[in-house]
Amino acid sequence: MTSIEDATYTSPAPPEALTLAQLAEMAGVSVATVSKVVNGRSEVGSETRALVEGLIQEHGFRRQRRRIRPAGLIEVVFHELAGDYPIEIVKGVQSVARHHRLSVVVSELGGRHVPGSHWIEDVLSRRPAGVITVFSGPTEEQRVRLATREVPLIVLDPAGDPGRGVPSVGVTNWSGGLEATRHLLELGHRRIAMITGPEFALSSRARLDGYRAALDGAGVRVDPDLICKGAFQIDDGIVHTRRLMALPHPPTAIFAANDGQAMGVYQAAHELGLRIPVDLSVVGFDDMPPWRWAIPPLTTVRQPLMEMGATAATMVVSMAEGEPFQRRVELGTELVIRGSTGPVQA
Amino acid sequence: MTSIEDATYTSPAPPEALTLAQLAEMAGVSVATVSKVVNGRSEVGSETRALVEGLIQEHGFRRQRRRIRPAGLIEVVFHELAGDYPIEIVKGVQSVARHHRLSVVVSELGGRHVPGSHWIEDVLSRRPAGVITVFSGPTEEQRVRLATREVPLIVLDPAGDPGRGVPSVGVTNWSGGLEATRHLLELGHRRIAMITGPEFALSSRARLDGYRAALDGAGVRVDPDLICKGAFQIDDGIVHTRRLMALPHPPTAIFAANDGQAMGVYQAAHELGLRIPVDLSVVGFDDMPPWRWAIPPLTTVRQPLMEMGATAATMVVSMAEGEPFQRRVELGTELVIRGSTGPVQA
Repeated sequence: MTSIEDATYTSPAPPEALTLAQLAEMAGVSVATVSKVVNGRSEVGSETRALVEGLIQEHGFRRQRRRIRPAGLIEVVFHELAGDYPIEIVKGVQSVARHHRLSVVVSELGGRHVPGSHWIEDVLSRRPAGVITVFSGPTEEQRVRLATREVPLIVLDPAGDPGRGVPSVGVTNWSGGLEATRHLLELGHRRIAMITGPEFALSSRARLDGYRAALDGAGVRVDPDLICKGAFQIDDGIVHTRRLMALPHPPTAIFAANDGQAMGVYQAAHELGLRIPVDLSVVGFDDMPPWRWAIPPLTTVRQPLMEMGATAATMVVSMAEGEPFQRRVELGTELVIRGSTGPVQA
Repeated sequence: MTSIEDATYTSPAPPEALTLAQLAEMAGVSVATVSKVVNGRSEVGSETRALVEGLIQEHGFRRQRRRIRPAGLIEVVFHELAGDYPIEIVKGVQSVARHHRLSVVVSELGGRHVPGSHWIEDVLSRRPAGVITVFSGPTEEQRVRLATREVPLIVLDPAGDPGRGVPSVGVTNWSGGLEATRHLLELGHRRIAMITGPEFALSSRARLDGYRAALDGAGVRVDPDLICKGAFQIDDGIVHTRRLMALPHPPTAIFAANDGQAMGVYQAAHELGLRIPVDLSVVGFDDMPPWRWAIPPLTTVRQPLMEMGATAATMVVSMAEGEPFQRRVELGTELVIRGSTGPVQA
């Protein structure tokens, strides 16, 4: 279920591998120079680089391990604490943190996607093993301050661009959007509406592009009237379903960019006397536990939130301990077919 | 909405009030002795006690304030991270923590209601401003270790007895059970079933006693066949509703001890072709946000979870700063009538 976008992961070094200091001695250069080579920095002459790389190829290289402070902290920062999304991520972070006897600090930015100025001072004074920001991210200045104090930063489910060189964990949003829409096409639907997330969210844009790609692939015209701008809120589902179903040529299926919006579609459908899935098929995105109990249970694209949290925490530990790790991970989404989707009615 | 069970709260001392040291000097006794008197400990002679108490009555007493460490921690310990219950509590804790520039550490006991042995070592090494345990509690030994290191402990929604002298925050569970059942009685229901929480949970026992009291008060016999043992799980609602509705004389209403169980009742009702509330009325307990979107929306007893978290955090800060505070708080519950309850059918 895990797909890997860009496999830069290095396997663990053999026990006889050389340390930074041993490499420096053998090459007759400073430790700082060797460090620049192994970290892929540019300010090293090509001859020196070739020499050091040759030694590493011959003998192997063992990165100097730092031990993370026992009883240390991993900070997880959410823009907002609401619903099951944060809890699932915290559970995943905790499953890894526990093994390393790290505690998890949870904080909320009161709906903002960028931390305030107090935040960085407090984080630095706590000297955590690392910071995971969720659907939010520090400013460039805050990132630099974390980096200079060697506090690892991982961006989970990046809202916008995570920042140059900042490691991140996401999911295959585009594929998820594609798969959800293909499922509806296979059921015979042709008038398929989509309710999107907010425009600043890359995840939402990727889901929309996946929807468009599926329609294009099936030779179905993308009708702009059927694409509704939302903000990942239940209300989006209510408002847009009312509007969509009042169109002269209403859709037979709605793909909502998150489960909350899909629940809004249920509300409006009930209000309009439409039966799901007989009169209207609905697909969500997330697979939040409560909506598995909706009647009928929601067909949705599962995001492995716990696994995302665990992956981000593992990256924090690797970064803190100076271990190699993959800097950009996209975990796979999975279409979960339940009772809210059915064949189009003639 | 806030009811106060046992009002031991002391109003702030006047500015001219004496400190511990000034009182000791005036009484000609040690600071330790004065401290014993003001903290209500027994190992002080009655004459000395009377002398110190007289001085306090005359001049007032100002507890020595300690300042909590900036960028310190409040630890919140859950037996399990699942659903909206923990998130609502964390939000409440955070709303208070933010004012004091404290961070919130969230941890989970993997379903256990008593922390393991590593836990206390890690907590003590972090020296938090205080610890809030939720629906769980430390052992007597762990409590003593926290107390001797002056780490305040608050038990929120105590599962069992919070321990002698341990401050706690709960809700009026008995009144909540009473109110839910009365609401059903007022709608004409007489065959009212109840699905309880686990037996070790005092909150569940209190809700059951409230249910019994309402039936007794209305002169309706408590039928043991209609009382089903559950464990706050969705499955309880499914399994027990199937059994209850197969009785020769089935209930016309079910009061579930939490919202999750009530959702299980919805599932089983749907499966049995019963319409809510026409064929079966349902009341839950908690008022978790997702179930407000159930169709029909759930009538339930609201627990003010955010307020519980905020109250516990305020108690931690007061304890840490040596301020007087109320040691046992029960916040009020509130019946929220929505669409899942209706008049009994003839």
